[in-house]
Amino acid sequence: QRGSVKRCLCQGQGQNMIRLQRIEKVEVHPAGPSCDNVEIIVTLKNNAGQKCLNPESNFAQNYIKKAVQKR
Amino acid sequence: QRGSVKRCLCQGQGQNMIRLQRIEKVEVHPAGPSCDNVEIIVTLKNNAGQKCLNPESNFAQNYIKKAVQKR
Repeated sequence: QRGSVKRCLCQGQGQNMIRLQRIEKVEVHPAGPSCDNVEIIVTLKNNAGQKCLNPESNFAQNYIKKAVQKR
Repeated sequence: QRGSVKRCLCQGQGQNMIRLQRIEKVEVHPAGPSCDNVEIIVTLKNNAGQKCLNPESNFAQNYIKKAVQKR
C-alpha cells in the first residue's frame, strides 16, 4: 500500500546454499505489502540461528521442490 | 534413530487447501529423526494461528513451487 512501511526480513539476496544436514526448517514468506519479494529463511539445527536463502538460487528451488515431492 | 522419541508437529495429514490471502508464512519441516514425514505448517495472518497443510495436496505443491519461481 502507498505510504506503508516496508519491513523485509532479509538484507540482500541471501545465501545461495546451506548444507542439508544443518537445516531444521525452512520458512517461505510470500511477497506482500510488507516486502516486495518472497523471502526464504532457514532455521539451523542446534540453535545455530537463522539464515536467509536466495529464493532464486538453484539450491532453494530444488530443496523446496524436493521437500514436497510426492513419494 | 532407534529408541528416539518421535514428535511430529501435525496430527493427521493436514488440510488440503488454505486461502491464499490468509497465509502469512509457510514452514517446511523436512523429514528427519523427530518425524518420518515432511510437515508443512502455515501461519495465518492476523494472529489467526497455525494450520498443518497436507504436503501431498495439489495446493501445497503448487504454492511452494510458485513461491520460489523465478520471475
